[in-house]
Amino acid sequence: MNAPLKNDTFLRACLRQPTEHTPVWLMRQAGRYLPEYCATRARAGSFMGLATNVDYATEVTLQPLERYPLDAAILFSDILTVPDAMGLGLSFAQGEGPRFATPVRDEAGVAALAVPDLDKLRYVFDAVTSIRKALDGRVPLIGFSGSPWTLACYMVEGAGSDDYRLVKTMLYARPDLMHRILDVNARAVAAYLNAQIDAGAQAVMVFDSWGGVLADGAFQRFSLDYTRRVVAALQREKDGRRIPCIVFTKGGGPWLDEIAACGADVVGLDWTVNLGAARARVGDRVALQGNLDPNILFAPPAVVAREARAVLDSFGRPQRTASEGGAWDGHIFNLGHGISQFTPPDHVAALVEAVHSHSRTLRAAP
Amino acid sequence: MNAPLKNDTFLRACLRQPTEHTPVWLMRQAGRYLPEYCATRARAGSFMGLATNVDYATEVTLQPLERYPLDAAILFSDILTVPDAMGLGLSFAQGEGPRFATPVRDEAGVAALAVPDLDKLRYVFDAVTSIRKALDGRVPLIGFSGSPWTLACYMVEGAGSDDYRLVKTMLYARPDLMHRILDVNARAVAAYLNAQIDAGAQAVMVFDSWGGVLADGAFQRFSLDYTRRVVAALQREKDGRRIPCIVFTKGGGPWLDEIAACGADVVGLDWTVNLGAARARVGDRVALQGNLDPNILFAPPAVVAREARAVLDSFGRPQRTASEGGAWDGHIFNLGHGISQFTPPDHVAALVEAVHSHSRTLRAAP
Repeated sequence: MNAPLKNDTFLRACLRQPTEHTPVWLMRQAGRYLPEYCATRARAGSFMGLATNVDYATEVTLQPLERYPLDAAILFSDILTVPDAMGLGLSFAQGEGPRFATPVRDEAGVAALAVPDLDKLRYVFDAVTSIRKALDGRVPLIGFSGSPWTLACYMVEGAGSDDYRLVKTMLYARPDLMHRILDVNARAVAAYLNAQIDAGAQAVMVFDSWGGVLADGAFQRFSLDYTRRVVAALQREKDGRRIPCIVFTKGGGPWLDEIAACGADVVGLDWTVNLGAARARVGDRVALQGNLDPNILFAPPAVVAREARAVLDSFGRPQRTASEGGAWDGHIFNLGHGISQFTPPDHVAALVEAVHSHSRTLRAAP
Repeated sequence: MNAPLKNDTFLRACLRQPTEHTPVWLMRQAGRYLPEYCATRARAGSFMGLATNVDYATEVTLQPLERYPLDAAILFSDILTVPDAMGLGLSFAQGEGPRFATPVRDEAGVAALAVPDLDKLRYVFDAVTSIRKALDGRVPLIGFSGSPWTLACYMVEGAGSDDYRLVKTMLYARPDLMHRILDVNARAVAAYLNAQIDAGAQAVMVFDSWGGVLADGAFQRFSLDYTRRVVAALQREKDGRRIPCIVFTKGGGPWLDEIAACGADVVGLDWTVNLGAARARVGDRVALQGNLDPNILFAPPAVVAREARAVLDSFGRPQRTASEGGAWDGHIFNLGHGISQFTPPDHVAALVEAVHSHSRTLRAAP
């Protein structure tokens, strides 16, 4: 039995319910910019050593909450755990991004793909349960996965890419193979997120980190359609509470209207999007999450605070909407991308403080 | 005295005048995907050896025109020649992108910047004159430069970047320094493009390759404002003909309306933008250039042709508009980014053929 939630601001904002301040959390908030994270990672030996050990994963998930009054925790894990469980062999070389030992590049490789035995991801669900216990109701815990398309990018390329040549070649030359990968991924991601919810995740987020590299038309068919399938397959209520679902497409600004119709409660936005214009476009269909450029955190704390206020001002004051009987437009403050490892930790403190205080001021204005 | 132009389809489309087919050229069309280019580059010894030698630059500029019935030539050069002339020391290491020996990172470095003596760029203007002569009126020649912001990215970072941390840190922490760099760059780029026009360039293009990495708000202040200054300072008529100006912001989709108001005749679009929706938004204010995903060229020729037709269909049939006394909406077919070095040359032939034949079919439809 988990402790009752003391701060549910984040969950309420996701559902466009009234809040006293704008909740804030940061993508990759448990990360290398924190010396205490680096210390734990050094003990763990490797990134996957950290992610697969329940105690370490719990420890690093809670580290940013000890420093900052953040309104949500996010499971410490990686977006690529699912293809790793499919047997592709995920590793992180020092100073480089993720790499798969056996990328999927031909008919035989695609045919061999299957939804993995969820028991291979037991370490993730155990971490969720452990983190929930350690959080003791302080803030909600967000679970997550990569989107079917984003997983496919890494599965085909075998690593990050500048041009996505291999995965796009398959997409255009052999769309049948690409659809088969995406179908397996969508079923796997849905099962994976539902198991995280069973283990205690109070919201889930789908990271479509590479949706924005697709052409208009291809994005809808090869990314958004499969994200929509994942969202439709999610359990959305647990213990009498709705489990909000966030969909974040980096570079997805051109398709905001379509993404807002995918069934998610919240749409994540990167910093290229004007938040006020986005709010006007989506109306009361979804809440919005974002969208400070993480590079702003390299500026002095006074500039960080000013730019954070500008993001809040751009979104505008939460207010009752005509429809939905008293729902408020929801805004969850976040960065438009993961926080950089070079970020000075005290600048993050200035950011969180500015979001909390300025959003309270906006609510108090007549 | 240059020969009269035999094929002015490209120039007419830029000015939204009637054309018999949709003109097509490809960003980086003189490049490493062509074996004959690689042979010339090997003789030249290095990229800058190629770009600074008038005979080599002329030779490689014309190579793609020998293979394909393209509707425009583009000067063979680099977007970074201007900061090189400022003394920053441009080089291209084998297999890597551009690099500056002395990046601009502090107050002293910024203070030392000045509009370069255009004589240091004489090799570019000589190449323009030589290429015009070699073209003998076959198709128009496009001159170009990087945008003030894109030049600043490389000048501060010293090379390409994943996160633009250094240049964005300067932008947010020391906007005064950034504005000074951009002011010098804008004046230099305008003078540089005007000299290209004097030497014979029949259209000019500003590549804002990195505008799309900026946050909404910052893009307008640090990129578009300076591009606008460049456009305003250009000579727009030469020998009784209008010199069209193209502005291309990679990732600029979110700001299409604002870019379309910058004074350019043509706005270049990347593949994330829906061409039909973009046309509806800009109306008859500007022509549009783009926007096939260059990765489509890795698919079989039949798929390349199908996707090229889809781009033309998305834009729709050119037609007379109500205003401007008989102007047509202009479309120049292009990729949404430079062609990849791994592109099979015969796929490019299929692309050009499909654009010409399908656009003629669209015009002939009742």
